[in-house]
Amino acid sequence: MKENYTLLCDFYELTMANGYFELGKKDEIAYFDLFYRTVPDGGGFAIAAGLEQVIEYVKNLHFTEEDISFLRSKGLFSEAFLDYLRTFRFTGDIYAVPEGTPIFPNEPILTVKAPTIEAQFIETYLLLAINHQSLIATKANRVVRASEGRAVAEFGARRAQGADGAILGARAAYIGGCAATATTSSDRDYGVPSTGTMAHSWVQMFDSEYEAFVSYCRTYPHNATLLVDTYDVLKSGIPNAIRAFREVLLPQGITKCGIRLDSGDITYLTKKARKMLDEAGFTECKIVVSNSLDENIIRDIIRQGAKVDSFGVGERLITAKSNPVFGGVYKLVGVEKGGELIPKIKISENPEKITTPHFKKIYRIYDNETGKASADLLCVWDEEIDPKEPLEIFDEVQTWKKKTFDNYTLRELLVPVFKDGECVYASPSIGEIREYCLAQVDTLWDEVKRFENPHHYYVDLSEKLWNVKHMLLHSGGKYHK
Amino acid sequence: MKENYTLLCDFYELTMANGYFELGKKDEIAYFDLFYRTVPDGGGFAIAAGLEQVIEYVKNLHFTEEDISFLRSKGLFSEAFLDYLRTFRFTGDIYAVPEGTPIFPNEPILTVKAPTIEAQFIETYLLLAINHQSLIATKANRVVRASEGRAVAEFGARRAQGADGAILGARAAYIGGCAATATTSSDRDYGVPSTGTMAHSWVQMFDSEYEAFVSYCRTYPHNATLLVDTYDVLKSGIPNAIRAFREVLLPQGITKCGIRLDSGDITYLTKKARKMLDEAGFTECKIVVSNSLDENIIRDIIRQGAKVDSFGVGERLITAKSNPVFGGVYKLVGVEKGGELIPKIKISENPEKITTPHFKKIYRIYDNETGKASADLLCVWDEEIDPKEPLEIFDEVQTWKKKTFDNYTLRELLVPVFKDGECVYASPSIGEIREYCLAQVDTLWDEVKRFENPHHYYVDLSEKLWNVKHMLLHSGGKYHK
Repeated sequence: MKENYTLLCDFYELTMANGYFELGKKDEIAYFDLFYRTVPDGGGFAIAAGLEQVIEYVKNLHFTEEDISFLRSKGLFSEAFLDYLRTFRFTGDIYAVPEGTPIFPNEPILTVKAPTIEAQFIETYLLLAINHQSLIATKANRVVRASEGRAVAEFGARRAQGADGAILGARAAYIGGCAATATTSSDRDYGVPSTGTMAHSWVQMFDSEYEAFVSYCRTYPHNATLLVDTYDVLKSGIPNAIRAFREVLLPQGITKCGIRLDSGDITYLTKKARKMLDEAGFTECKIVVSNSLDENIIRDIIRQGAKVDSFGVGERLITAKSNPVFGGVYKLVGVEKGGELIPKIKISENPEKITTPHFKKIYRIYDNETGKASADLLCVWDEEIDPKEPLEIFDEVQTWKKKTFDNYTLRELLVPVFKDGECVYASPSIGEIREYCLAQVDTLWDEVKRFENPHHYYVDLSEKLWNVKHMLLHSGGKYHK
Repeated sequence: MKENYTLLCDFYELTMANGYFELGKKDEIAYFDLFYRTVPDGGGFAIAAGLEQVIEYVKNLHFTEEDISFLRSKGLFSEAFLDYLRTFRFTGDIYAVPEGTPIFPNEPILTVKAPTIEAQFIETYLLLAINHQSLIATKANRVVRASEGRAVAEFGARRAQGADGAILGARAAYIGGCAATATTSSDRDYGVPSTGTMAHSWVQMFDSEYEAFVSYCRTYPHNATLLVDTYDVLKSGIPNAIRAFREVLLPQGITKCGIRLDSGDITYLTKKARKMLDEAGFTECKIVVSNSLDENIIRDIIRQGAKVDSFGVGERLITAKSNPVFGGVYKLVGVEKGGELIPKIKISENPEKITTPHFKKIYRIYDNETGKASADLLCVWDEEIDPKEPLEIFDEVQTWKKKTFDNYTLRELLVPVFKDGECVYASPSIGEIREYCLAQVDTLWDEVKRFENPHHYYVDLSEKLWNVKHMLLHSGGKYHK
């Protein structure tokens, strides 16, 4: 059973909806783009996520009688409008970038074409779902890249911002490249592998650490990762773990085991621990660490030679602590008047807040020699590019800066998700999304993946789109064909 | 219908539970404290919130057959344990500080006494619920105090970390003192008043700003707050708003109206706007502002004389952006052996990570002359204090620092919430919680409420409790009566 999130909307979506209804504007067609303006943490790209929840939401969009009674009690809405809500469904089109795709500022992650009320009404939830999961997938991908091939498990449910913060946060973290989560329901509901062994309280519940370890090894001989920092890591934790492994696991022929460190200096302790374990013959014992980690600490301790096999990352990943907001926005880019598409622009004193008008498509340009993504090109929806011809692109502001591609492959990023209210998109499995994400991140140049001052990836406009935008800028927003 | 969050647990709660079950330890009684260590944003206190969701969770705690099948598929749990889960319920006791109470580091917000498996199992969700809502209530209270009596509306759903981040975040923000939310379902489900009028897209959907404003005033003459920054605030937005108010509202005798500013320099624009509105006779027109606000910006613009009647605060409140983690922890403080309560301590190299052992009560000491809260005193659960006698307290570390109260009132903060698995707590209404919160914050000295370097509020231990703690510290955790 899925929760009905229809009323998870800003109240102004309803006052506007009732207004459009009363003014006879409800069936005018509007186009909205969902996009973001700035990469979190000063990174070079973000990872799109949250589309599956958008699809569920849109499919399930309806007002119950309870909702309608509640809205009536606000004393603002006409009875005709409330009656209209009884059969309200989404009947429009949605295009979106597949989950797991690297995305760049100022290009649509999602485009909606629908009757005005519908297109406007879904704003809040669409932003919420995409902003949240793209935030966490992006952060997770940073942490995973910092870990240089070591597995990262997401551990943050207890510090997440609400239940979905934990559950869908774990989903997004997996898309971004984490190997597992501690959140059990994310496994049951979304197929994210869940893992976990023991807390400090397990060790405290026994009369001694040794007894706690032996008991655990007896219960889970094939899954014995022992938490060694309840008392003293080097003097007590590791020696007791080695003793328990020896007494319980070795007689069963088991050599695979693990220890976890949740405090103290990771570099120092893991080096010492690795030496002690190896000398005791437990070369297959994995070392897991998990103490307020993020991509910066992980990068540092790896550089210092810490002996770590995998990381557990909690609060700093599940809340994207260093930058906990993904600032996606939802902006009107066009309306239809008498069957004609009129591009709309939002002009602002702030140049970075000016929108790119029109119903658009995005081409990602891959260089055939390197396989790398070289630029994205935003075009008017009906433009076609012949990939056999050389393709010249130019910078939107410094228009004299040009680049020509001769040997390239184009890929359209926005794919149809809803058509006339029907879902036409087959969501990949979570594992496929994760693999796709990691493969797509591999198509980016290292310069774009740098954490500090990454290379600015090109997102340019086609000449046709540039002309429309600049015509609207000069006319104060009035469109002339 | 409430979601079943039973499997919203760290996977290790399950591996430990199965272990305790297999080892015959499931019925040993354990005591856990939930507390936090550091006030977010360097503040002087936090606001407790989330208890109502804890109550719902505990009442609803059960494993479905689907959950059990899922757990079986992990290949880690015994059939006897899986069978035990079929009838698993919470049968213990919970004590908690009421929602809306100002809370200080290192004192229990919540205490659980229950059979080991139960007490351990509920850890993840309890932390998640209390951490999330206490975080947002604390942040909201800062924003509300900065606003000095002006109403604050919570506007952040689109940037929240998941659905509950938005919905329960709005609930917590209201407890902390916000006046309203934009999130409609928080009104329907939790009674937080929802408000909202229009987005920029409303203005863009009409052929002119003037037409958009007139249409809105006609639809909502008693609720006309117009967004005036789509094109140019002073040259277009305010003049068009005044014209629409004059043409639509005045003929109906309506003088109450509003404008909203969502960009630009708030101090400058609101001073100009106030003058223009007053000169046009709209002295009752309210000015609402809402652009990436937080407590620091609000305090600044009020000091600069900005003319603001109310604030809309979005992403920086709903994610507690400046400090998005409330670091609550859940620690074992005692076990029962043969009917005797054995206090447990967690010793750490890090002095601030050492726990205060034992099953405890908290007294808040109010000075009878000022009505102000002067200190909190943690006592062993069965201690009684005679408030007719002078009460001497002492600092836990600098034990020679003492303070004596002669004329005081005591209040016990932890109240029974569950007794033998039955809920014995009648939750107040959300409005009562909010009023209680604001009244309790009023009992704090201004020095404690300072944003920068606040006065450190005393949280001391009774002599009896201090003795138990120090005996355990010296014995390496071994308890002797």
